[in-house]
Amino acid sequence: MTIKKATATAHPNIALIKYWGNIDHELRLPSNGSISMNLGCLETRTTVMFKLEAKSDNLVLNGKAADLDAQKRITVFMNRVRELAGITDHAHIVSENNFPAGVGIASSSSAYAALSLAATKAAGLSLSERELSRLARTGSGSACRSIPEGFTEWITGDTHNKSYAESIAPPDHWNLKDCIAIVSQDHKEIGSTQGHEIAETSPLQASRIASAPERLDICRQSLLERDFKSFAEVVELDCNMMHAVMMTSNPTLLYWEAATLSIIKAVQSWRMDGLQVCYTIDAGPNVHVLCPNDIRAEVAEKLSGIPGVQKVITAGSGGRAQII
Amino acid sequence: MTIKKATATAHPNIALIKYWGNIDHELRLPSNGSISMNLGCLETRTTVMFKLEAKSDNLVLNGKAADLDAQKRITVFMNRVRELAGITDHAHIVSENNFPAGVGIASSSSAYAALSLAATKAAGLSLSERELSRLARTGSGSACRSIPEGFTEWITGDTHNKSYAESIAPPDHWNLKDCIAIVSQDHKEIGSTQGHEIAETSPLQASRIASAPERLDICRQSLLERDFKSFAEVVELDCNMMHAVMMTSNPTLLYWEAATLSIIKAVQSWRMDGLQVCYTIDAGPNVHVLCPNDIRAEVAEKLSGIPGVQKVITAGSGGRAQII
Repeated sequence: MTIKKATATAHPNIALIKYWGNIDHELRLPSNGSISMNLGCLETRTTVMFKLEAKSDNLVLNGKAADLDAQKRITVFMNRVRELAGITDHAHIVSENNFPAGVGIASSSSAYAALSLAATKAAGLSLSERELSRLARTGSGSACRSIPEGFTEWITGDTHNKSYAESIAPPDHWNLKDCIAIVSQDHKEIGSTQGHEIAETSPLQASRIASAPERLDICRQSLLERDFKSFAEVVELDCNMMHAVMMTSNPTLLYWEAATLSIIKAVQSWRMDGLQVCYTIDAGPNVHVLCPNDIRAEVAEKLSGIPGVQKVITAGSGGRAQII
Repeated sequence: MTIKKATATAHPNIALIKYWGNIDHELRLPSNGSISMNLGCLETRTTVMFKLEAKSDNLVLNGKAADLDAQKRITVFMNRVRELAGITDHAHIVSENNFPAGVGIASSSSAYAALSLAATKAAGLSLSERELSRLARTGSGSACRSIPEGFTEWITGDTHNKSYAESIAPPDHWNLKDCIAIVSQDHKEIGSTQGHEIAETSPLQASRIASAPERLDICRQSLLERDFKSFAEVVELDCNMMHAVMMTSNPTLLYWEAATLSIIKAVQSWRMDGLQVCYTIDAGPNVHVLCPNDIRAEVAEKLSGIPGVQKVITAGSGGRAQII
């Protein structure tokens, strides 16, 4: 009997140009392209074991049986994998994050990237990076960006085949650090999946999407040229564009907390004073403060001193999802 | 010799549907219509005295000689008045607010409304309400809404003659209170005049303007029907639309402070709990919390308990600008 088991790791990523809204919710085909950086020292490690005797998929997440919604979502995803592999077995899945979930570090990105790789490998498939990225996307949109290495770009595409992420620069291209200021570890009331579904209710979403290609170009270019000033401006603008859409959607999504704003204001003033820092914020209250590696300790210390900051996690750019 | 002197009062107003951006900066012809409520117990009192011997206009604001920028702006405005009246005399102007300036209570609205009335009266003119509103608009856009009484609407218009405010309901139509939570009394770094000039740099401004007529209709209708639920939703949405444009313009305008966000979140949760409250925020960090008169004390007390709230000023709806 063949042992149908594999373990993979993947890093979460922080979006520099944001993904918000879909043209196809089921396939998670995004309304606009996005660019992100894999977060090196953070990772999800997932083991998938297909079992002949199992009657359903079974997910253990961070040591606990996952709730019904997570189980259902996993089963929809695993059905795709089974279809690809031509098998019918159900799987026992064990997944661990080395960072807190649901707080603006996109745990679903690393989760579905690691799962895509582990599940296809355990099922006897050997997918290309592009195929893996497409598959990961169907589990959680941003997961497609956690498949390739370093700085990655998710190409918009209007079909399943055309929508995947590719690396635009390896991890060592630019020694940037993401100092993540944690202000809350509460679980989000409205998660990203539901958020994407209401993006169109904002009168501002169409303009955000129409103007995204220009920001993608500026972000890609500034990354390739390691031009921090241009990078900082476009990353903050794009972050604010997404939160502008969120706070004008129906229902209103206001992910920021008081401390979030204190950090934004601090980062703005530090940059005015000449420090190379900029902020970005995902669908949560925590603030990702990007800076060159040589000032990471100073930035982390400054962030720790802001009232409301519980802790600061620092991560560099990370590699691709891989089998271990 | 005729004494060319007059004193007038006017109330500042709080915009329920916001004015942000112009199609003509000099004439202050707005990009979209707006609706506001005059704030009853707050007022500017302005005395204008034309003096044969004066060589320039001279403004004393809250007991101090105004700065050069304010003097210049007043002179441009007084030149309009002189042209209308066919006179050449310069004026001594004394203006007092009974509330702090530059903190999101739109002091320029009451200032230019009171000045329009006092200056034209002192110059021997007797303008209609509509003429006064047009004139006030050229001094400070939102001042046109402080000329008529109660709840007023500023009609967009593409010429000087077509752009003025009218009352849509008298002060006693709806006994609403504005509980203004003051979180900062610092002067704004970037004032509204400059802000209006950069509104177009936001990729979101065009959509905000295109969707404004719908919000104006909903706001006007909910005001006339005293439908708090509908009123609350459109007022908050329109506030967020303006701040979305501000935070995506170049330079970025982020008027909110940490305490601003604490108040927004509190108001959202109070309304979820059944309290009739909603927030709106002008170009500053302070939060205007609107509620029916019967819960004003409860709302003011709750606001006072939020960390960062320095004080709460409560105002009802006010009357028209008038000669005293």
